[in-house]
Amino acid sequence: MLAAIERANVGHAFGYGHDPLTERLEQVFARHFGERAKAFPVWGGSGANILCLRAACRGWEGVICAATAHLNVDECGAPEAIAGLKLLLVETDDGKLTPGLTEPLIARVGDEHAVQPRLISISNCTELGTVYTPDEVRALAELAHSRGLLLHVDGARLSNAAAALGVPLAALSAEVGVDLLSLGGTKNGLLGAEAVVFLEPALAEGFEFLRKQSLQLASKMRFLSAQLEALLDGDLWLRCASHANAMAARLAEELTGVSGVRITRPVQTNAVFAVLPETAAELLRRDWDFYMWDEAAGEARWMCSWDTTEEDVDAFAAAVREAVAAGRPQRAVQP
Amino acid sequence: MLAAIERANVGHAFGYGHDPLTERLEQVFARHFGERAKAFPVWGGSGANILCLRAACRGWEGVICAATAHLNVDECGAPEAIAGLKLLLVETDDGKLTPGLTEPLIARVGDEHAVQPRLISISNCTELGTVYTPDEVRALAELAHSRGLLLHVDGARLSNAAAALGVPLAALSAEVGVDLLSLGGTKNGLLGAEAVVFLEPALAEGFEFLRKQSLQLASKMRFLSAQLEALLDGDLWLRCASHANAMAARLAEELTGVSGVRITRPVQTNAVFAVLPETAAELLRRDWDFYMWDEAAGEARWMCSWDTTEEDVDAFAAAVREAVAAGRPQRAVQP
Amino acid sequence: MLAAIERANVGHAFGYGHDPLTERLEQVFARHFGERAKAFPVWGGSGANILCLRAACRGWEGVICAATAHLNVDECGAPEAIAGLKLLLVETDDGKLTPGLTEPLIARVGDEHAVQPRLISISNCTELGTVYTPDEVRALAELAHSRGLLLHVDGARLSNAAAALGVPLAALSAEVGVDLLSLGGTKNGLLGAEAVVFLEPALAEGFEFLRKQSLQLASKMRFLSAQLEALLDGDLWLRCASHANAMAARLAEELTGVSGVRITRPVQTNAVFAVLPETAAELLRRDWDFYMWDEAAGEARWMCSWDTTEEDVDAFAAAVREAVAAGRPQRAVQP
Amino acid sequence: MLAAIERANVGHAFGYGHDPLTERLEQVFARHFGERAKAFPVWGGSGANILCLRAACRGWEGVICAATAHLNVDECGAPEAIAGLKLLLVETDDGKLTPGLTEPLIARVGDEHAVQPRLISISNCTELGTVYTPDEVRALAELAHSRGLLLHVDGARLSNAAAALGVPLAALSAEVGVDLLSLGGTKNGLLGAEAVVFLEPALAEGFEFLRKQSLQLASKMRFLSAQLEALLDGDLWLRCASHANAMAARLAEELTGVSGVRITRPVQTNAVFAVLPETAAELLRRDWDFYMWDEAAGEARWMCSWDTTEEDVDAFAAAVREAVAAGRPQRAVQP
Repeated sequence: MLAAIERANVGHAFGYGHDPLTERLEQVFARHFGERAKAFPVWGGSGANILCLRAACRGWEGVICAATAHLNVDECGAPEAIAGLKLLLVETDDGKLTPGLTEPLIARVGDEHAVQPRLISISNCTELGTVYTPDEVRALAELAHSRGLLLHVDGARLSNAAAALGVPLAALSAEVGVDLLSLGGTKNGLLGAEAVVFLEPALAEGFEFLRKQSLQLASKMRFLSAQLEALLDGDLWLRCASHANAMAARLAEELTGVSGVRITRPVQTNAVFAVLPETAAELLRRDWDFYMWDEAAGEARWMCSWDTTEEDVDAFAAAVREAVAAGRPQRAVQP
Repeated sequence: MLAAIERANVGHAFGYGHDPLTERLEQVFARHFGERAKAFPVWGGSGANILCLRAACRGWEGVICAATAHLNVDECGAPEAIAGLKLLLVETDDGKLTPGLTEPLIARVGDEHAVQPRLISISNCTELGTVYTPDEVRALAELAHSRGLLLHVDGARLSNAAAALGVPLAALSAEVGVDLLSLGGTKNGLLGAEAVVFLEPALAEGFEFLRKQSLQLASKMRFLSAQLEALLDGDLWLRCASHANAMAARLAEELTGVSGVRITRPVQTNAVFAVLPETAAELLRRDWDFYMWDEAAGEARWMCSWDTTEEDVDAFAAAVREAVAAGRPQRAVQP
Repeated sequence: MLAAIERANVGHAFGYGHDPLTERLEQVFARHFGERAKAFPVWGGSGANILCLRAACRGWEGVICAATAHLNVDECGAPEAIAGLKLLLVETDDGKLTPGLTEPLIARVGDEHAVQPRLISISNCTELGTVYTPDEVRALAELAHSRGLLLHVDGARLSNAAAALGVPLAALSAEVGVDLLSLGGTKNGLLGAEAVVFLEPALAEGFEFLRKQSLQLASKMRFLSAQLEALLDGDLWLRCASHANAMAARLAEELTGVSGVRITRPVQTNAVFAVLPETAAELLRRDWDFYMWDEAAGEARWMCSWDTTEEDVDAFAAAVREAVAAGRPQRAVQP
Repeated sequence: MLAAIERANVGHAFGYGHDPLTERLEQVFARHFGERAKAFPVWGGSGANILCLRAACRGWEGVICAATAHLNVDECGAPEAIAGLKLLLVETDDGKLTPGLTEPLIARVGDEHAVQPRLISISNCTELGTVYTPDEVRALAELAHSRGLLLHVDGARLSNAAAALGVPLAALSAEVGVDLLSLGGTKNGLLGAEAVVFLEPALAEGFEFLRKQSLQLASKMRFLSAQLEALLDGDLWLRCASHANAMAARLAEELTGVSGVRITRPVQTNAVFAVLPETAAELLRRDWDFYMWDEAAGEARWMCSWDTTEEDVDAFAAAVREAVAAGRPQRAVQP
């Protein structure tokens, strides 16, 4: 990645994306998502998501998403404060919307007292590490389009979903009716770069203004473009994501059967969810940084990434076993 | 009410609330809510609610309320679009928050990825016609204050709640720790006037600017003040609300035992909820205007008001019976 | 006006504008503004203006207006805070835009760092009491349309402008290319009612939602509609406005030649601007309420209204003469 | 810079700024701005500015700045759309506010129809390349504080101002009463990193939430911190800025006396403004990328940067001379 940035760092380039590297990136996106796609580099995942919302919705329209969606729980209210839009929440078991769960929210159409549903937003993979298949995405796109709505994918970890399913990125987006996409890079190895990808190009009208106004226009955009090109030009995206997924599978396997530890959700991508005793969790968190997904239930979320090694996984698994046995782990590295 | 407006319509008065009538109104509010209270007339109930949210919360703070709250379902996204604030929703059986249901939402304090809970907002009476007792309100105020939050009451129909319980308005607000209040008038007989009442006066700092900016400053405010004074100076508020409540009780009684009609919620104030056959509902709605609370469940909401007469109730009850019997009602008056 | 409200107050009507009176009002507007016009009653002038801005502009678009516009100086930042839109300001001598003054602001089109001009907003009559003729409005509409912009008129006092020119309301709006209009009522005698009028009906799409969300949907709308009908059905709008204009002319005449008082702007409608000595202004303001338009210059603004009498004018003029002569006025009535 | 990022890229670090590098950066800022200062890395300059506005102002408050301020002309309406705040504009000759120009804008305090001034924002150096001296900044801070306002510096190029004056960064900020600061890095050689620096630490309360919500929280913050540390730990900031300033001085000198070219503003930092014939400007822009500051006046803005070489300057100056002589430049490098 640094090498890519270094290559971008030659001579003086025009700013704000009017540079050859950013132009070249268009072809990279076209190979993944088709010639109609229009992609725009941005700094962060929250930025990509909020921009998608602003691009798709007018002021009185709303966004249907899972109650567990990053949009709802981890953007510190940006959808409401920055986009001014209401989220219409669906309770799910596994973080995944279905047409059956979603359709009842497309209600009160024409009722001036109610926000008008405009966008269905799904995360693939979800915040629970589960994956939508191409058919499942297509079914939601069909529902959306049949009712005059659009389908957005929060793809902060779309690479992990595609790697898990063994399909190209388009199979979860352009080929199954997705209208617009937040495509992640940072969680898949980049220093900091994401992209908004319009699969329905008419939605991109005016987007340059939205990006600038929403504080996501990098003056030296070539350094973002260089990262995205490095990730997407070859199969680096796939190798990184596959590795992260494999490390999560390894962790799950090592912990299966450990007394006191219960894997709570299917391990489909790079996340492992497990319940463990409160004291064990406390001990572990002295040396390892992880997030308690559900404090009340004692459910931890352990994320593996492109740079997690087998040794990291084994050391962490050992630490978990030790902590559960009331001991205390020695090493201070996060998996 | 018209007489009150007519009395206000004498000579030329200073605008924007700098008139004797609006000043006199302060004393009326002081009698109801105590000397510390600061009240501000506004045009509408949505306006009063949104202003309370803006007065209580900073940009990254959130509002805990029932999923059934008017704020959530009937403001066309104004909390999000106009106040820029996120609602943190509680599922309830009867539209009422309890400390037990609410406390889990006061979570992730200090976590920069999460909206920080700042305000608990309850409706009294609720959108389901149920009532919080003074003790129930106090318990929520104590929870709020013990955690650094504030308590707001959406009192669009606070009069109906007070009438139902036989207590003064203060017993559901100033005396039990409520910090700020949207006080309704329009649903209790006014042509169009509500008030924002700060029981914690420090919250009112800068409120004049918020009211103007949020499009709720009436230039000829004396006509709002005149209505509020007429309602609140004597016991008109109580007579109107008690009458509406009585009419709902009458309707519930008349429909009890009617085959095919099931009253679904306790009738505590001026609303009757009932499930009836879809065809009967359709027939009825040709001549009577009412809202299907839960389209899927076939649950209708029938509201009685200060000007609903016994004859209206009886005629409507007859129409329901007829419709259920597959007949068709003759009269076109709304209860 | 009260009689009109009283007539509206018969029986129970459907809320939120679904009542016969509001429906009848459509025909009244059609007679004034043509069959294509779509009109929506709202509570206040700030509300009407902000709604017009929200209806016409997307998030990255801007509004060209005079620096003296009410939008800019008297809405407490509502265009920015509620509509999220930037005003692009034109300095003028007399509060009036011209194509020559306006065109330079239609700049940086396509430059992602700059707000994109979308709406030209003029006030007729202006905040300085000056009037645009039909030809002047048409010239601005032509400029707007030739560049892909729209023309809005803040017509809080459009009646005064039309009365001054002896033309119908359409001559300053529908007939000369105006796209949308804030039509005032409150400053012309109503208790509190204004209207948003779309002369280009496509702009009204979704407006019901915007009105509700922007806190301007009156549940008992028939009381607004009754006022607007009373004003607009016959010639009441014209009689009120003509009277107010005549009173301003009378005041200007009485003060002409008074030593120490200088009328600073042409008196075309119901406002008189005058410079007078600071001590005189102070003395006067003890008994009369008026606004210092330009504190530094000692310039006062005196507004006459539909209910200003000749006696009011004469008394005020006498008070001015007395105050300038260092005396002190006795009566406490505002003109 | 890349080396600094590479050093940051060792092992796995906690995200969102909870890493040793970001912690170490606090000491770097303390050395520049004092122990009370609180600094927060962000991605972009627009982000830094908007965050300062949100941190300083409540919804009904306004920001006084020069009409030429980046905030006003180059943020695509972000102050209005994202912060919801109104800018109160001052016309200036040289891009610089003075107490005399600023004080008249601190007006209508307490008038509910007007935005309440809260923040004075200056750019140092200004968009016109001019510089405020420490005494000039102090005078504005004193005005601000005496009237209950705060002083913000948009320091996207504060390094250039400090280098021009030969003073430390604190002499233009912490030592002269500045309350909060947008500190630039990208225009001084970084790949992309800026900082919000609170000199009045009480203003930082809640800032973590604002940063996240406003889309400026980098998950891998250490890569921003590494850049800022490399710039600020030693004197790199000074060397880069001094060099850029020197190159601008060289360019100005080379163009002095060239017939048809007129340097229009004092060259104090790294910008040269010049008027040249329209055809010459057109010719030049075929090969060199620069911005027409004032299209109507034919005034170009030429920026020099940390990596502009003497050869670049000489080549560009030669190209200008050639273009003015109606010839056409050969090389395609931007100064």
